[in-house]
Amino acid sequence: MKEILNGITAAKGFTTGAVHCGIRNNPQKKELALIVSETPCSAAAVYTSNQVKAAPLLLNKKHLVDGKAQAIIINSGNANACAINDDLNALRMAEGAAKRLGLKTEDVLAASTGVIGVELPIDKILAGTDAIVLGTDSTDSAKAIMTTDTIVKECAVEFELGGKTVHMGGIAKGSGMIHPNMGTMLCFVTTDAAISSEMIDKALKAKVKKTFNRISVDGDTSTNDMCIVMANGLAGNAEVDAQGADYDAFVNALGYVMQKLAVLIAKDGEGASRLITVKVDGAGTEDQAETIGMSVACSSLLKAAVFGRDANWGRVLCAMGYSDAKFDPSLVDISFASRNGEILVCHNGKGLSFDEDKALSILEPDEIEILINLNEGKESVTCWGCDLTYDYVKINGDYRT
Amino acid sequence: MKEILNGITAAKGFTTGAVHCGIRNNPQKKELALIVSETPCSAAAVYTSNQVKAAPLLLNKKHLVDGKAQAIIINSGNANACAINDDLNALRMAEGAAKRLGLKTEDVLAASTGVIGVELPIDKILAGTDAIVLGTDSTDSAKAIMTTDTIVKECAVEFELGGKTVHMGGIAKGSGMIHPNMGTMLCFVTTDAAISSEMIDKALKAKVKKTFNRISVDGDTSTNDMCIVMANGLAGNAEVDAQGADYDAFVNALGYVMQKLAVLIAKDGEGASRLITVKVDGAGTEDQAETIGMSVACSSLLKAAVFGRDANWGRVLCAMGYSDAKFDPSLVDISFASRNGEILVCHNGKGLSFDEDKALSILEPDEIEILINLNEGKESVTCWGCDLTYDYVKINGDYRT
Repeated sequence: MKEILNGITAAKGFTTGAVHCGIRNNPQKKELALIVSETPCSAAAVYTSNQVKAAPLLLNKKHLVDGKAQAIIINSGNANACAINDDLNALRMAEGAAKRLGLKTEDVLAASTGVIGVELPIDKILAGTDAIVLGTDSTDSAKAIMTTDTIVKECAVEFELGGKTVHMGGIAKGSGMIHPNMGTMLCFVTTDAAISSEMIDKALKAKVKKTFNRISVDGDTSTNDMCIVMANGLAGNAEVDAQGADYDAFVNALGYVMQKLAVLIAKDGEGASRLITVKVDGAGTEDQAETIGMSVACSSLLKAAVFGRDANWGRVLCAMGYSDAKFDPSLVDISFASRNGEILVCHNGKGLSFDEDKALSILEPDEIEILINLNEGKESVTCWGCDLTYDYVKINGDYRT
Repeated sequence: MKEILNGITAAKGFTTGAVHCGIRNNPQKKELALIVSETPCSAAAVYTSNQVKAAPLLLNKKHLVDGKAQAIIINSGNANACAINDDLNALRMAEGAAKRLGLKTEDVLAASTGVIGVELPIDKILAGTDAIVLGTDSTDSAKAIMTTDTIVKECAVEFELGGKTVHMGGIAKGSGMIHPNMGTMLCFVTTDAAISSEMIDKALKAKVKKTFNRISVDGDTSTNDMCIVMANGLAGNAEVDAQGADYDAFVNALGYVMQKLAVLIAKDGEGASRLITVKVDGAGTEDQAETIGMSVACSSLLKAAVFGRDANWGRVLCAMGYSDAKFDPSLVDISFASRNGEILVCHNGKGLSFDEDKALSILEPDEIEILINLNEGKESVTCWGCDLTYDYVKINGDYRT
């Protein structure tokens, strides 16, 4: 497997395009994107665990009952959730794209992200849909789905599947309201692999657990999160319809693309200045390691300490302690690490006296690691978060205005 | 029942005192306090649910096996948790106070709050203990137990119990690392009521659930939280040793004192500029209402919106939706309120168009209310939190240094 260019248009037969349609005032900000396959796709999706689900999610669940889709229409700037006519407008959005493309409405999926509770300007979206020019500029669409994001989130790979060369690419958005429990964002993955929707679904659920469900920006799980994978089969491999070596190759590539996008989301957390990677080793079970790792990645106190480059490991142990996972504090080792080195700050649950200047230097780069060893087993898990900064407060203090 | 002055020395027979002993550099900052009853007390305590428990908590559990205590020695500036010699130093702290007062060590309780993982400077504490002058200045002790707190947290009441006039008062500290699951802070309540330790324990557990467990500043549950109630019986009432009218009067007064202190802690959340009161009405069960209310009070996105005076009710509904409590979003009404008025922003789960200027005015004062009606039952619950501000990040970016 190797990384390649062109995101969601790296796979054969996929085109995309984006326009400014007037949801936002700034004419430079595109807020409507379309992703299309020239042939029908097997498709599967996962959705937010929030009980309050946005209208497009409910629509997509219906449209994916048959495991088939051919296009996705996506807007940013308005979540189409908890708003007047939200269900009707999600349907009209899909209908508009279907009409434009000459497809059945049931083969079009819809996604929205932005402010909750404001009626979707459907006429602007319908006019914008007709104005979209389709091509291969994946980055333009990746930018169009961004809200408070500052980094374009795009990734593609090439790998071998059943003797054929297969391509897979994805784009994602997400910066605030980011917390595990499904997708925690919007993510769209395209591939020219031939694979059944059942096997996509299985692969997607397996990898969401280890990627998007292991990042957190602020502990808030959105109403609109979803991740959709579409596979059009144009690579010509024998369709993957059961587990085995081909399925494993597909899962492996999907996991690579999703992890790359998930880490970009954590790194681009609203206001974030540092990506925090939390590695939990020596755990008895994967669940234990995940619960502990996510509790640490989510601690506001620790996140603020990382922002201030304060090696306040007491907050790591404290966050481990209030998680739902059991462990023996007297066995725990904690280190901080980065490209500037590594320093052990807690051994067997007790603080060590350490070189504060060295710790400060280790916490300087924009990517830092917190290494936890429970010293009770062989399981390990990695989670990702970001620091808590003045800018998070600034961005979220006046999001609607 | 009426409010009176003098906090923890309002009850007959209690004295207190505080000194600067050298844990902090600033000679103006007292960091050691002693609370003493002239006669033995019935006593009970609740402790943090964090698996990592500070040494003084483990000590107090032993010392309260008999339900008796006569003094509490408390330091701020060092948590005596996860540090070299932590258990030994907690014991030595109690021994030092016992020696000073002529009491048995088992009748002295200890509490610490501050940085985790640094060895307690026990010699400074022992010297400080001997230097404390006992008197009736409750406020001085309330200040001595403060860390990043900015508001003194003190309350006292007078009420009738078994035909006698009884006094009860408390002090508390807490500003960061504040989240439900027991005490979420330090709190010390004294009373001259005569009551068995079993009935204190019962009353304390009932009221912690409705007061300290319903506040949140940052979702972090500390290793050191505890709340201790001491009753010396000098009011002369017949000892309360069973449920009934006298017990109810005691619980009522205890709830009043604890709620007052809990709300002060929420209001004094690190960096907070606004107290947020979340009222959930029309719930099917109290648990449902509490889960929903706490989820809203804990949402970083909502807290930042309140700081920015942004009536972003979508974040309220979103936080309700990702809580563990089930409800029907299509029945939900949401209003914002304060002394400047009240405004309905969401009806039957859909956003209303509302006067933004009026909403801005309602969100202006330093105490605002979020009113949620689930419209499905008769239970209601109130929770308290605070906004998320630049200063929270600032305070926690360099706490240790």
